[in-house]
Amino acid sequence: MKAVQYRTIGAAPEVVTVPTPEPGPGQVLLKVTAAGVCHSDIAVMSMPAERLGFPLPLTLGHEGVGTVAALGAGVDGLSEGEAVAVYGPWGCGRCLTCAQGKENYCLRAAELGIRPPGLGAPGAMAEYLLVDDPRHLVPLGGLDPVRAVPLTDAGLTPYHAIKRSLGKLLPGSTAVVIGTGGLGHVAIQLLRAMTAARIVALDVTEEKLALARSVGAHEAVLSDARAAATVRELTGGVGAQVVLDFVGAPPTTAAAGAMAAVEADVTIVGIGGGTLPVGFGSLPYEVSVASPYWGTRDELIEVLDLARAGALDVHVETYGIDDAPLAYERLHAGLVNGRAVILPHG
Amino acid sequence: MKAVQYRTIGAAPEVVTVPTPEPGPGQVLLKVTAAGVCHSDIAVMSMPAERLGFPLPLTLGHEGVGTVAALGAGVDGLSEGEAVAVYGPWGCGRCLTCAQGKENYCLRAAELGIRPPGLGAPGAMAEYLLVDDPRHLVPLGGLDPVRAVPLTDAGLTPYHAIKRSLGKLLPGSTAVVIGTGGLGHVAIQLLRAMTAARIVALDVTEEKLALARSVGAHEAVLSDARAAATVRELTGGVGAQVVLDFVGAPPTTAAAGAMAAVEADVTIVGIGGGTLPVGFGSLPYEVSVASPYWGTRDELIEVLDLARAGALDVHVETYGIDDAPLAYERLHAGLVNGRAVILPHG
Amino acid sequence: MKAVQYRTIGAAPEVVTVPTPEPGPGQVLLKVTAAGVCHSDIAVMSMPAERLGFPLPLTLGHEGVGTVAALGAGVDGLSEGEAVAVYGPWGCGRCLTCAQGKENYCLRAAELGIRPPGLGAPGAMAEYLLVDDPRHLVPLGGLDPVRAVPLTDAGLTPYHAIKRSLGKLLPGSTAVVIGTGGLGHVAIQLLRAMTAARIVALDVTEEKLALARSVGAHEAVLSDARAAATVRELTGGVGAQVVLDFVGAPPTTAAAGAMAAVEADVTIVGIGGGTLPVGFGSLPYEVSVASPYWGTRDELIEVLDLARAGALDVHVETYGIDDAPLAYERLHAGLVNGRAVILPHG
Amino acid sequence: MKAVQYRTIGAAPEVVTVPTPEPGPGQVLLKVTAAGVCHSDIAVMSMPAERLGFPLPLTLGHEGVGTVAALGAGVDGLSEGEAVAVYGPWGCGRCLTCAQGKENYCLRAAELGIRPPGLGAPGAMAEYLLVDDPRHLVPLGGLDPVRAVPLTDAGLTPYHAIKRSLGKLLPGSTAVVIGTGGLGHVAIQLLRAMTAARIVALDVTEEKLALARSVGAHEAVLSDARAAATVRELTGGVGAQVVLDFVGAPPTTAAAGAMAAVEADVTIVGIGGGTLPVGFGSLPYEVSVASPYWGTRDELIEVLDLARAGALDVHVETYGIDDAPLAYERLHAGLVNGRAVILPHG
Repeated sequence: MKAVQYRTIGAAPEVVTVPTPEPGPGQVLLKVTAAGVCHSDIAVMSMPAERLGFPLPLTLGHEGVGTVAALGAGVDGLSEGEAVAVYGPWGCGRCLTCAQGKENYCLRAAELGIRPPGLGAPGAMAEYLLVDDPRHLVPLGGLDPVRAVPLTDAGLTPYHAIKRSLGKLLPGSTAVVIGTGGLGHVAIQLLRAMTAARIVALDVTEEKLALARSVGAHEAVLSDARAAATVRELTGGVGAQVVLDFVGAPPTTAAAGAMAAVEADVTIVGIGGGTLPVGFGSLPYEVSVASPYWGTRDELIEVLDLARAGALDVHVETYGIDDAPLAYERLHAGLVNGRAVILPHG
Repeated sequence: MKAVQYRTIGAAPEVVTVPTPEPGPGQVLLKVTAAGVCHSDIAVMSMPAERLGFPLPLTLGHEGVGTVAALGAGVDGLSEGEAVAVYGPWGCGRCLTCAQGKENYCLRAAELGIRPPGLGAPGAMAEYLLVDDPRHLVPLGGLDPVRAVPLTDAGLTPYHAIKRSLGKLLPGSTAVVIGTGGLGHVAIQLLRAMTAARIVALDVTEEKLALARSVGAHEAVLSDARAAATVRELTGGVGAQVVLDFVGAPPTTAAAGAMAAVEADVTIVGIGGGTLPVGFGSLPYEVSVASPYWGTRDELIEVLDLARAGALDVHVETYGIDDAPLAYERLHAGLVNGRAVILPHG
Repeated sequence: MKAVQYRTIGAAPEVVTVPTPEPGPGQVLLKVTAAGVCHSDIAVMSMPAERLGFPLPLTLGHEGVGTVAALGAGVDGLSEGEAVAVYGPWGCGRCLTCAQGKENYCLRAAELGIRPPGLGAPGAMAEYLLVDDPRHLVPLGGLDPVRAVPLTDAGLTPYHAIKRSLGKLLPGSTAVVIGTGGLGHVAIQLLRAMTAARIVALDVTEEKLALARSVGAHEAVLSDARAAATVRELTGGVGAQVVLDFVGAPPTTAAAGAMAAVEADVTIVGIGGGTLPVGFGSLPYEVSVASPYWGTRDELIEVLDLARAGALDVHVETYGIDDAPLAYERLHAGLVNGRAVILPHG
Repeated sequence: MKAVQYRTIGAAPEVVTVPTPEPGPGQVLLKVTAAGVCHSDIAVMSMPAERLGFPLPLTLGHEGVGTVAALGAGVDGLSEGEAVAVYGPWGCGRCLTCAQGKENYCLRAAELGIRPPGLGAPGAMAEYLLVDDPRHLVPLGGLDPVRAVPLTDAGLTPYHAIKRSLGKLLPGSTAVVIGTGGLGHVAIQLLRAMTAARIVALDVTEEKLALARSVGAHEAVLSDARAAATVRELTGGVGAQVVLDFVGAPPTTAAAGAMAAVEADVTIVGIGGGTLPVGFGSLPYEVSVASPYWGTRDELIEVLDLARAGALDVHVETYGIDDAPLAYERLHAGLVNGRAVILPHG
């Protein structure tokens, strides 16, 4: 089958032919319908060899949806042809956090060498994907696979970040979304659907701010040196109860701290290398700062439920599998509008 | 000043002239702008003398907004003319629950003889209202007083009931609102603004179901013997995660239990005399049934914030103070559309 | 192998010889070290045929610990000889509640015909137990299997009930435990280890009250018609913030309601046929009444962690497998002190 | 009356004679029984004039207990001679956070110039203390005032920090207390009484570690460069679920981050000038770092309840009012064992 692989440190991904896998006992083989292209793939492909943590070649793609092509021995509860989304942050399934559905925080994944598809294990950017256990599969239930595939990361990650703060997103509260790209433009829609918070979007171009407004932001503000002061003005001096930073670069993490209200949650999702120092006097009282990773199994079910309710509109552009390298090029160049999605059979 | 009083057990309320009160140390005198007419007043006026628990005459009105007319000695932080809403369920202010803002659940109110205005203490249905402590006053902040006054009970009570269940009102969940009158039609709007739950409204006439749809219910279903089965069908057999019963009569509490999902919250707000028996096997596993009362101080602030954001549209009809007895008559006859509001000064 | 089976409606269980099962793909075969004897088995054996819901014969035993005897194809992360406890309330593993580890509330178990071992599926009261999936197994980690086996139900069930109410078990609160037998005497220890609540135990004999005191109850009170009044006196009139009823018979559920504080949790665990009616005015404001079932996967891990910390001392008496029918007789006659445990190989 | 005042920037406190205050309307005059001596007073007395934020002289003492000496007009619910503790972090009493009892996070205190007694307003280190509102007073209910007075800050502050993390302090979890002095040695006792967590105490001398063990720490470890590694070893590599840093200096905040588990709470209470940077990759996933301040009104009630249950044993040494400057000297020199308490009347 065809697969998009990262094969050489620092090189561009390539489309190659590899053997089609077969499902062993307990495994499921998916025919991949769509696979998402993500900035974090580029981050992985920029790492020096010693930080990579797994051998090459790697079949890319940690966002995937497909149809069940074959069931390994002992698998039941799934039928061939069923459309499913793949929960990506695989864990051991048995430790305390996995038992709570938080496989993204598996206590034993590192020790056991368990890695997500596309981020260590063979990923979804291929004609077929081998899934270790049926628990990683969530029924699509009628969702359009192309528009649904980004929900497995670009939807799930902001959903998890928002769920951390639901108790603070009450009427009268303000939520700031920094960075309105792949994850951020979904975050705005999630906040709008799930909370009564006022949503302030920050980004660096008027075009992106227009998108933010169109998907539901109440206010859209240029993300510059005055942004924190503007948020304070918009909130009568109080600041924002929740700040979600999908950029995570030094200027945005600093701004996130500067616009936070007493007892705010500041959640740094972006991997831009910024940090926010927390100590007595460094921030308003009891601002809670954390940097989460992806989301939980049950949260993916909820995100897909929300999409089925019509509350989410992910902007996508599609490519055939042979054009996957081009999609990465365009993403790297900042030319992708929303999320790039690869259709391995289309 | 003029006041609407309940003076004789079983008799209709009367408009009488009483001395205008003066604020003592720590008290605040309000010039009442608007006062709400509530079913629970009628319930009080239907009680036999031995259950009443306080002496007559009683100036009615537990929903009130006004402007500060005079400040007692030692009161600061308020200025004359400021528009405020009255938090009604007064408590001692110092016990554990009052310290959390839950004066509706004051541990010492009964012992100390503290009663809400209009429900034991002189109420808001008069030209002036004496308020014991400035903490009971929330700034209106530009809200139209006539449309805001029902929020102090008909808004606050469903808000409190919903807040109990916010953790269960996630994407994919279903909330049922039984009874779409004064409180229920606000509940639908609160659920729509604050959660991603699908909202199913139940009531007994097509006219009321049309109102429910117009304020945001996704589904509106006749509240008859088949209603529970219909809710189960609408939820793929699972049932509703949250059921809010604003009627609380035997048929509705039974239906509420019959449509509840595993781990659902059933919240019985209505005072219609119904109960739902809870024990192993009587309901789906871990359905949690409770009957709350009114709301907390901070919740009233949040409800008014939400109204200021434009999310709430309370239907009201207004009366001069001399027509207050007529308003009660019409309410009792089921002729009031939304909430009846008395304007003591005009 | 030998197995203890319920074979004929209304008859006593019998020790029979059945084929030793073999693990298919994805399954695990356990050599059973110990299996618990539970009142709910007797309840099952008292049901008329039409309520049973599954065919006979049934190998009993829903509390089990053992060592891994054989692994089906595709199972990893377990090694032969490893000592494990069995999480009993099996679910589909993939629905929303299973994804959260709450397989006790699986949304699809009924539809898919999934039943717990010993309560529909072949149970642990045999020399070997076939386990459908390794996720049902929790490492014992050095715990004595005989004293640990009751933790899988008699520990997990009260743990789950207590966890529902942790937020109310703060300093100054009172927790009442009604029924200090198999589950109740563990509940007292759990409350003592996990909270600062004052613990009041209720039971019907001085001997049981003495046991309650010895495992940590601050007060032990005869469970009679005056018990609710006594609890109110002990709490300065306020009542208990949490009431755990492990009897669940009409007198205890009524007492539970009568001793509850405003905003209390009343949790009815016992299957004694009692119910508590909830509606406006029937109980103090916002008392939340629920009847849960067993516990979650992560909670079983936590209970075993707590036992390893030395906080739990379950009283057990042991029987060989041939004496299992005798153990049921003694349990039925109220002669078992703590928990009866069957040792199939010992 | 005598009062201990900070009168000149950089100078030692002095005992002076000032007029005894009289309660105005709504105020309460306390005869001070005991007042605590706190490190934060020394921090205040070390600030340059431009950072102080309020004029001198300042009567010190933000921990106070006393008896009601006189009631201003309009105050009821208190009687002369009643023993009470003072809730110190006064707020406006009416904003959203004050309405929830979180006056420590009052949204309007700065704007309205409201300051705690002893930290801007006249404090408790005097023969009499004027209290603005009776809501600041919590009944002592039989507690020894000398041992109770530190609970108003040295008890309340760690209590608040712990309550933030109660949901993570489950069986199997580990809590680390860095710094076992005035606040830390109470934190250990609070954790022991309220949770089943394993408690690891860190401090810099064997003597302090011995105290930590004597008040309930399961492990006591020297707070040096290897401490984080030791905590990881003690937790099987997982790290601590909760880290409470009562020192807050650069080495301890760094260690706090290095010993945190995935999803841990790191709470920096100490004002030692350290910060912990949070961003993607800087800490384990979703470690939540915050720096809270003091505690809430309801929490002080709960702390006193816990003390009445016998769970807290605060180490104190007492001084007459004339020796207050000496007490500050000894505290500054690290010679105080536990908490120094001033007895203004002997």
